[in-house]
Amino acid sequence: MNAPSTMVAMGLDQDTGPMLTTPSTLSPARPKVVIVGAGFGGLAAAKALASAPVEVTLIDRRNYHLFQPLLYQVATAGLSPAQIAQPIRAILRRQKNARVLLGRVTGVDRRARMVEIGEKRVPYDYLIVATGARHAYFGHDEWEPFAPGLKKIDDAVAIRRRILLAFERAETTEDLAERQKLLTFVVIGGGPTGVEMAGAIAELAKRALAQDFRAIDPRDARIVLVEAGPRLLTVMPESLSAKTVKSLKKLGVEVRLGQAVTAVTAEGVTVGGELVPAHTVVWGAGVAASAAAKWLGADKDRAGRVTVEADLSLPGQPEVFVIGDTAAMMTKDGKPVPGIAPAAKQAGKHVARTIRARIAGRREPGRFRYLHPGNLATIGRSHAVADFGTYRFSGFIAWVLWSVAHVYFLIDFRNRIGVSFDWLWSYFTYQRGARLITGEDTLD
Amino acid sequence: MNAPSTMVAMGLDQDTGPMLTTPSTLSPARPKVVIVGAGFGGLAAAKALASAPVEVTLIDRRNYHLFQPLLYQVATAGLSPAQIAQPIRAILRRQKNARVLLGRVTGVDRRARMVEIGEKRVPYDYLIVATGARHAYFGHDEWEPFAPGLKKIDDAVAIRRRILLAFERAETTEDLAERQKLLTFVVIGGGPTGVEMAGAIAELAKRALAQDFRAIDPRDARIVLVEAGPRLLTVMPESLSAKTVKSLKKLGVEVRLGQAVTAVTAEGVTVGGELVPAHTVVWGAGVAASAAAKWLGADKDRAGRVTVEADLSLPGQPEVFVIGDTAAMMTKDGKPVPGIAPAAKQAGKHVARTIRARIAGRREPGRFRYLHPGNLATIGRSHAVADFGTYRFSGFIAWVLWSVAHVYFLIDFRNRIGVSFDWLWSYFTYQRGARLITGEDTLD
Repeated sequence: MNAPSTMVAMGLDQDTGPMLTTPSTLSPARPKVVIVGAGFGGLAAAKALASAPVEVTLIDRRNYHLFQPLLYQVATAGLSPAQIAQPIRAILRRQKNARVLLGRVTGVDRRARMVEIGEKRVPYDYLIVATGARHAYFGHDEWEPFAPGLKKIDDAVAIRRRILLAFERAETTEDLAERQKLLTFVVIGGGPTGVEMAGAIAELAKRALAQDFRAIDPRDARIVLVEAGPRLLTVMPESLSAKTVKSLKKLGVEVRLGQAVTAVTAEGVTVGGELVPAHTVVWGAGVAASAAAKWLGADKDRAGRVTVEADLSLPGQPEVFVIGDTAAMMTKDGKPVPGIAPAAKQAGKHVARTIRARIAGRREPGRFRYLHPGNLATIGRSHAVADFGTYRFSGFIAWVLWSVAHVYFLIDFRNRIGVSFDWLWSYFTYQRGARLITGEDTLD
Repeated sequence: MNAPSTMVAMGLDQDTGPMLTTPSTLSPARPKVVIVGAGFGGLAAAKALASAPVEVTLIDRRNYHLFQPLLYQVATAGLSPAQIAQPIRAILRRQKNARVLLGRVTGVDRRARMVEIGEKRVPYDYLIVATGARHAYFGHDEWEPFAPGLKKIDDAVAIRRRILLAFERAETTEDLAERQKLLTFVVIGGGPTGVEMAGAIAELAKRALAQDFRAIDPRDARIVLVEAGPRLLTVMPESLSAKTVKSLKKLGVEVRLGQAVTAVTAEGVTVGGELVPAHTVVWGAGVAASAAAKWLGADKDRAGRVTVEADLSLPGQPEVFVIGDTAAMMTKDGKPVPGIAPAAKQAGKHVARTIRARIAGRREPGRFRYLHPGNLATIGRSHAVADFGTYRFSGFIAWVLWSVAHVYFLIDFRNRIGVSFDWLWSYFTYQRGARLITGEDTLD
């Protein structure tokens, strides 16, 4: 289960790098908890250790915590990046036993108990790895340039640029086939990301942009949602999947179920053997865990998720925990815990409780018990589906529930107000607040 | 004054490109007014032609109108890009005689009366060139990579990234000289941009970030404002320049007057013969007009501004107008009109009036008469200077005036609310809303 050869290959046996000293505001005598990743899981763990007699170091390669469930709204010009991201430092400002390091972790020396950031080394007594997941192309990495995924703010801004530029280019081309291709948007993957993206692109085209062009009518845009499986939103009951298809069709989205994508090129997407010429393709299908399994020399499943004990520690390494999308977390019945924010948060809190108990010499909580809060997905203005086991909602009520839940969970009061305002504004005016084409690929 | 050789060199004699046809929503029989640039001047001209019997085409290489006076707030993490930018299409949505083209103009064929966007050609009967200005390095273009200027949203986001990353790197370095260099910020140029940037960086370091680090104290940051001339804000009376220096010093900014910059490198800035080691340098000094003079084969002054007649038309080309920062506009007394938004707006309206009069066969308004609304510059929270001729303000009152004026002139109601909210929030909490490090140069 351990992989010493990997450790040697990564240079973990050489102690060449400088060791980061503990700043004087932290007390060096306390146990050091290092958390890698400031997503929902890592941040929940850090906060749950606030009053514990430990020194917390939270490492992330971004300076902000991202509210990923709303990233598709940045990609479709509804929200600005800053509205769904908060500086990690600001979140933990008042937590005196915590420090934040901006850095890209390159490896873990489990023998010396050191996290490596290039040449720098950060010592730990407890390590929590919460590095999340990225999109995967099932062995077709050559599709990535044509079908970008949606995991980071830079991804979302790049997709926003593609979508908005497609309409601009359609407005100035006189070639009708090219115009049709520019006005075709294919979303691959019928999970929540795919459903939300397809619905949001349809609303952008058919509402927000409807009056803004002279040579084209954005309402002619063709939006295709492709899912290889037999239905959308497989985590939901079948009745809600069917309602989702109905709502999407009402918005003008073409839903293709049970059709596999066999090629993605500059020409478009080949789906069910047919080429759909499309200029803009968004990937919402595969997810793979981050490189953490490699750092840890740990066992992993097919999606790259680290195999963990029932208490989320690494087998044989009780001081190392892996949580959230990075880990193959299981429910009591042996089913996989879903890769959603509540699961990561619960896992972060569970691990923090375990560490606190171990330090205090109290009985540890043991097995991680996942409490499923329900599933929510939005399809567009006034349309969503919600599944809370016995209670199921669709349509406007589900949409209100979805809006309230998402605003509530946005970390900061200021963001809550800002996002609420933007949503109300969009709701009543059909407008979008962040229709900017920025960055490299523009006309400059 | 004409430059046929340039026209030939630019391939203007070959009619190879496709000509953009007029969309059916516009009426092709009406005179065609083409406006290049959707800044304050171009947009004012387009709007002032709303009820005129013309067909307006507004061309810009960006899809948004930018409220440039607040760009420094994006660069210092106070506002999000979308808060100071509005889609041009959305602004002109209801103006039925206007269309918007996203495109980068590459030349003008004045003989055939065509604007060239690469291979595309857009015919005009009247042409308004309002392409603004960019920053200039007075023959030291090699300084640009080390001292980026502030004209575009991408500039502002890049500067924000540099500033925020400097604090992050200072937190993790153990090398004290390197730390001091990382915490030194030099702003070059004592005009409004330089003063506002220096004040905003000081507030960011000394207020918003003050509690967020553990190894460094951001309040130790050194902010240096350099001006080669004898005083700051030369457009203001001397008394207000002196007050500006006082306010900046109070904020902890080191003001260096009468000291020329002789080198900018990766090591820092050489000013008055002394090297100030600095990791972050912002250029707010020189401005040069866009390449429009070259397209037009027109005479220009030392800053590249096109020489225009009193009515802002090109000499010998009464159907071509050049306005705003692109033109060397003069007051009745032969003094240069300042390069500020109100001047560009007034010029845009004046040219629109001229075109309307000419089409209607009425007497044209003739000479452009500039009405100076006054000068305003903000130095930081609760500090600004305002000069309205006989009325001069400084301190809190000027700052309130500045805030109200800037919010008022933000084009869209929604942006006004959003920006007001962010400012009130920052005012009461000392926080910044957009502290994100995004884009290429991050740790990915």
